[in-house]
Amino acid sequence: MSEENQKKSTLIDWDSRYAGRVPYLKSSAIRDLLTLTNQPGIISLAGGLPAPEAFPVTEIKAAFNEVLEKESTKALQYGTTEGYIPLKEYLCESMRKYGVPAEVGNVIITNGAQQGLDMVGRLFVDEKTVVCTEGPTYLGALQTWTFHGAKYCTVPIDKEGMRTDLLPELFRQHHFKFIYALPNFQNPGGVTMSLERRQELANFAQKYGVFIIEDDPYGNLRYEGKDVAPIVSLAKDNTFYLGTVSKTLAPGLRCAWVVAPEAVISKNVLAKQSSDLFTSMLLQMAVHKIYTSGMLKDHVANVRVLYKERRDAMLTAMDKHMPKDVIWTRPEGGLFLWVTVPSIVNTTEIFEKAIENGVAYVPGVAFYPNKVEDGLHTMRLNFSYNNPEKTKKVLNV
Amino acid sequence: MSEENQKKSTLIDWDSRYAGRVPYLKSSAIRDLLTLTNQPGIISLAGGLPAPEAFPVTEIKAAFNEVLEKESTKALQYGTTEGYIPLKEYLCESMRKYGVPAEVGNVIITNGAQQGLDMVGRLFVDEKTVVCTEGPTYLGALQTWTFHGAKYCTVPIDKEGMRTDLLPELFRQHHFKFIYALPNFQNPGGVTMSLERRQELANFAQKYGVFIIEDDPYGNLRYEGKDVAPIVSLAKDNTFYLGTVSKTLAPGLRCAWVVAPEAVISKNVLAKQSSDLFTSMLLQMAVHKIYTSGMLKDHVANVRVLYKERRDAMLTAMDKHMPKDVIWTRPEGGLFLWVTVPSIVNTTEIFEKAIENGVAYVPGVAFYPNKVEDGLHTMRLNFSYNNPEKTKKVLNV
Repeated sequence: MSEENQKKSTLIDWDSRYAGRVPYLKSSAIRDLLTLTNQPGIISLAGGLPAPEAFPVTEIKAAFNEVLEKESTKALQYGTTEGYIPLKEYLCESMRKYGVPAEVGNVIITNGAQQGLDMVGRLFVDEKTVVCTEGPTYLGALQTWTFHGAKYCTVPIDKEGMRTDLLPELFRQHHFKFIYALPNFQNPGGVTMSLERRQELANFAQKYGVFIIEDDPYGNLRYEGKDVAPIVSLAKDNTFYLGTVSKTLAPGLRCAWVVAPEAVISKNVLAKQSSDLFTSMLLQMAVHKIYTSGMLKDHVANVRVLYKERRDAMLTAMDKHMPKDVIWTRPEGGLFLWVTVPSIVNTTEIFEKAIENGVAYVPGVAFYPNKVEDGLHTMRLNFSYNNPEKTKKVLNV
Repeated sequence: MSEENQKKSTLIDWDSRYAGRVPYLKSSAIRDLLTLTNQPGIISLAGGLPAPEAFPVTEIKAAFNEVLEKESTKALQYGTTEGYIPLKEYLCESMRKYGVPAEVGNVIITNGAQQGLDMVGRLFVDEKTVVCTEGPTYLGALQTWTFHGAKYCTVPIDKEGMRTDLLPELFRQHHFKFIYALPNFQNPGGVTMSLERRQELANFAQKYGVFIIEDDPYGNLRYEGKDVAPIVSLAKDNTFYLGTVSKTLAPGLRCAWVVAPEAVISKNVLAKQSSDLFTSMLLQMAVHKIYTSGMLKDHVANVRVLYKERRDAMLTAMDKHMPKDVIWTRPEGGLFLWVTVPSIVNTTEIFEKAIENGVAYVPGVAFYPNKVEDGLHTMRLNFSYNNPEKTKKVLNV
């Protein structure tokens, strides 16, 4: 480019060019805070990361080798938006065993569960949409739906999960379009929704014509107690079920799935087609190889042993070291503890102090879509990522 | 679920639940037609698929093995939304050689180039947005931007590419926000934009404060003639440059990138975070290994030889067999020929007849956002996927 042209060029004022929805696209203050947790020397209880020791590396490597050896043409070419059919068939079968009524036409493979949440946003959320979430709830769902224009109402949780008794009154006030539920080892609350509550939620959805997004990343990670029937098994025509390999195999495989009524899946396919065409066949075929190798049952059992140890170590350390007026959940599975501190303590305010002392957590406010005060005195602690010795070391400080 | 509850359940009328933008989310009639091309026995000149013989399977397998051997913890864990820094550094360096001014802060890795186009849609397109595309243009860009609310005006192309002389008048009429250009071996037109036209486009963008999306999937696939400077090198503050590994390595690796002003990349990061959190580190690290193994130069040279042969075979067969009043482009690279038939022939109407005769193409109407008549007498033919013998066989029918 000539100097003359350089001079003629007018810098674009990008802020004036963005679409109307872009102001909703914010890096939460929390995400900014959390960049601090990546500093060397910080022991982070903040993330939601699986333990790298739990990745079945040998099996993953063997699967990639086999797929590239035998089916490279299919694995490396463009693939269908719907997903790799043998993987979908396998998932359907294992989900049916788990109580999820799924046929191949009910399933789409997504690039991680976040993409499933985004598809829900693309298809169902605009500026007229009210979403009912649990309070607290998953940060990533709020981020995408807020971008698509969502307003929110929240239903509190207690030790049996979502307070379904409050739904009719909330609906009268807010006319929400759908309810977002994390029924197993809730992120961040750590609680599991009882069967009674699930049934009550299913009945509510059917009676009021609302639908449910059942997000179940941790369902396989139960360390005690018995599986509870998935919501989708109680209200199959009203429920989107989201599953993923991220917590049982590895997040880097980017394979997740949505189970939903067939008519909606066909719209999901169009929404995904415009988003990113397809999810890598190589990844899907490798996941399928791993699943059908027969290693999954033992692997999940091992992961459960590892995470149970870590949960127990954290609970023991909490019992030993936390002041009496601090309370926390005792999750039957999943990755997180939810901690409530006395109301004189603001967990966002003490966050920097915690960082100075070498430990990070997520302040509770991050998990609420509306009023900031809702989470002021709470925090989420992750127990899956660090080994127990490290966790003890931190909590002994 | 009890029978009683089954009876109580009311089926949801999904159509009444969709967001306001969903009516824009259509499977084009063309995509439906194209499902016909997957029938056994059909030789398809319709897709935009690279030749599977061109996938560097051995190198890809070695790369996955090495990454999983040495860096599995990083490759399989959650990754950053921005992308794998060593890959971004490599891309910046090679793009600078190619004339694209890129630093790491100017780049985001996307899950294929379609995701880059969707990011542009998320950030810049709403119902008030007019987009100026070449006519004809890439189908996938139209699909995502239409979903985000775009209206269109089109600027025709001739053998030197976009008719940039028409831009000021088009702008006066339509006040478009940005211009979408495929300057190298255009999809579907097959033409390459001359340096003069690129400079004129750059000048126009700078003078009128519009920006340019420069989509360059085929830039490396030149079979004759000399590289022309990328538009971004002429208007770096006004241009988004989109690159991808899909056509030179393999689509199944799902690695592409956007180069843009740093302020916009930070918004892109937020948009991607809400879409799918991150692109698989395993895929990015494998691509990085392949790129830095030193194989790329020879590999691209080989692919060029293969595709040049296929282009020449198709051109020879066209010369030999096509009626005199049919004309077509003679692309210097890329994957496509653009064919114009006499105005008494409607390429959509004869499509089914072509399928009956065992050959598929894409009717021209698919590539125009507005008036259907624009593409009635044109079609796109792909020469990269089938081998020359097959192509000859088809055209000899």
